[in-house]
Amino acid sequence: MTTLEELLNRIVPASEENYKKSEQRQSTLTKPPGSLGALERIANKFSSIREVFPPLVPSVPSVVIFAGDHGVLKEGVSPWPKEVTLQMLANFSAGGAAINAIASQVGASVSVVDVGVDGDTSKLERVIFKKVRRGTANLAKGSAMSFDEAHKAIEVGIEVGESVIASGADLLLTGDMGIGNTTPSAALISWFTGSTVEETTGRGTGIDDERMRIKVRAIADAIGRLKILNSNDPIEVLAEVGGLEIAAICGFILAGALHRVPVVLDGVIADAAALVACRLHVNVVDYLFAGHMSMEPGAVKALEYLGLEPILKLDLRLGEGTGACLSVPLIQSAVRTLTEMATFESAGVSDATH
Amino acid sequence: MTTLEELLNRIVPASEENYKKSEQRQSTLTKPPGSLGALERIANKFSSIREVFPPLVPSVPSVVIFAGDHGVLKEGVSPWPKEVTLQMLANFSAGGAAINAIASQVGASVSVVDVGVDGDTSKLERVIFKKVRRGTANLAKGSAMSFDEAHKAIEVGIEVGESVIASGADLLLTGDMGIGNTTPSAALISWFTGSTVEETTGRGTGIDDERMRIKVRAIADAIGRLKILNSNDPIEVLAEVGGLEIAAICGFILAGALHRVPVVLDGVIADAAALVACRLHVNVVDYLFAGHMSMEPGAVKALEYLGLEPILKLDLRLGEGTGACLSVPLIQSAVRTLTEMATFESAGVSDATH
Repeated sequence: MTTLEELLNRIVPASEENYKKSEQRQSTLTKPPGSLGALERIANKFSSIREVFPPLVPSVPSVVIFAGDHGVLKEGVSPWPKEVTLQMLANFSAGGAAINAIASQVGASVSVVDVGVDGDTSKLERVIFKKVRRGTANLAKGSAMSFDEAHKAIEVGIEVGESVIASGADLLLTGDMGIGNTTPSAALISWFTGSTVEETTGRGTGIDDERMRIKVRAIADAIGRLKILNSNDPIEVLAEVGGLEIAAICGFILAGALHRVPVVLDGVIADAAALVACRLHVNVVDYLFAGHMSMEPGAVKALEYLGLEPILKLDLRLGEGTGACLSVPLIQSAVRTLTEMATFESAGVSDATH
Repeated sequence: MTTLEELLNRIVPASEENYKKSEQRQSTLTKPPGSLGALERIANKFSSIREVFPPLVPSVPSVVIFAGDHGVLKEGVSPWPKEVTLQMLANFSAGGAAINAIASQVGASVSVVDVGVDGDTSKLERVIFKKVRRGTANLAKGSAMSFDEAHKAIEVGIEVGESVIASGADLLLTGDMGIGNTTPSAALISWFTGSTVEETTGRGTGIDDERMRIKVRAIADAIGRLKILNSNDPIEVLAEVGGLEIAAICGFILAGALHRVPVVLDGVIADAAALVACRLHVNVVDYLFAGHMSMEPGAVKALEYLGLEPILKLDLRLGEGTGACLSVPLIQSAVRTLTEMATFESAGVSDATH
């Protein structure tokens, strides 16, 4: 496994040359210039990520769901009991969750990693055991975890990412499970984008006004501590608010960037993790696609900040990697049009522009 | 083959009972209520279209590209020569167009129907020959075709639609090819939605200001004649502006509605055809999905009028069925989550809402 420090020394910018080759090729294909819209932008970016042009259509999309629990749940930020994190891991194992249905449809593999579940996952089939600690501490009252724990959780993500890539994955899809995890996500997004707590805090899986007030207050308390901490180290910030699965997703993203495998962000949890990853290394954003725009307001702020255009807008607010997975056929189609379409010349089609 | 008149007598509303069963089932599945957003709305509508609940995940998506030429091209509404319609049919046959790449990716079959190409398609493999006439007349100067020709072209669409359904298609995707066809589409959308020509006329495959002025004037002239005609018969309106492929798409849509096979509209051409079909029978809209929102302004007006929510927004303006095809995995995923996900009870997951 590559350590975090080694990895950060080895990430390179994506290839501008391949981007230009892709743009140039687009203009020769049998379609009016620009008429495939976002698909062309996706294919061009995809080309820049891969080392060889033209790129292969990705055929081994792999979603990894990182799971962790959140001490802030004690404040009452969610109507769902903590046990649901563990119960949903059992549901993933049994193939009964939304992500299982969607991944089957698009031909993606699903892996589940316990990086911080506050419960016993040892009996669940197909759950990779990488627990750093049993849930975070309550971010409303103090640090969610230590610096070392956050660092360790990031390295779990790197390790799993590298292992999935070694198995042949050519498209990494982020997934998350953790009751309460929109709370640390909103805190991270507020901090890194300079947005107010009100601008980034949403109703998650669906909460009432009273829980919403509690949630905003908890996040504001954490932000208050971050202001006092006044740290330039994104890992210190991450340790302060959590969560363990967000740290692991950050590492997973970094593994994709190092190995030049495109990473598709799912919703607001991944968007928060991406902000941390992009603070750790400025070129990470070159390797990212935003699978969809989550209903959580923080997602808008995070994607704007990162300059990423969401592929889908389906009012999803489920997580698990569902939005990332749904975007896979569109990314595949984008690359496929780039690489398989005839040119005006080869097809003998008259070109209005020449 | 069912005649148009027989068909209109036999279309029934979609099943409200199945819609309610689907909604009810959504609330028992292991996800926060409503968290799959548009996917839930798609699955519920899909359920209402099919006779048996729960519906099967559609596995035989079929795109049919109807092709025709347009006399209005003489006015200079497009920079592309008329020959491109025929050349693109050759490209479809050879598998080199965008629709070929995308259909391969999502597992859809592609059929091409010559309903009105002004050229010889007899030597092209896999092109179904159903030519009603060689292109329409110039809609800026007079009727694009006769009532009988429009009627005949609609019945071509019914015939092909029924044949594709008989071969096992369980999801119909509209496709079109016809240089100049955004012009009659804008005219139809203006007329049926009561929008101004400026509100519905766009730059198609990309035209300059001068061509844009010509296009708006041509459409305004046709609308002027429609006002004098003042007909309540949508086929008379269709005959006045064309085109032949729009009429055939209208018939194809009607075949889907009759046989309760969902129809996915591609872009603005299909949206215009759908307006005609929905004027012919009020329940047709029950059977329609909007695959995407085209960049043409008329598409916004048409979908608003029909009350259809586009599944994708990718700035596409290509046609051929590309946007409809790209939405297929999302529709499949929507139905798959509905039918394959575990319930809170079966998975032993605690439900916040009970």
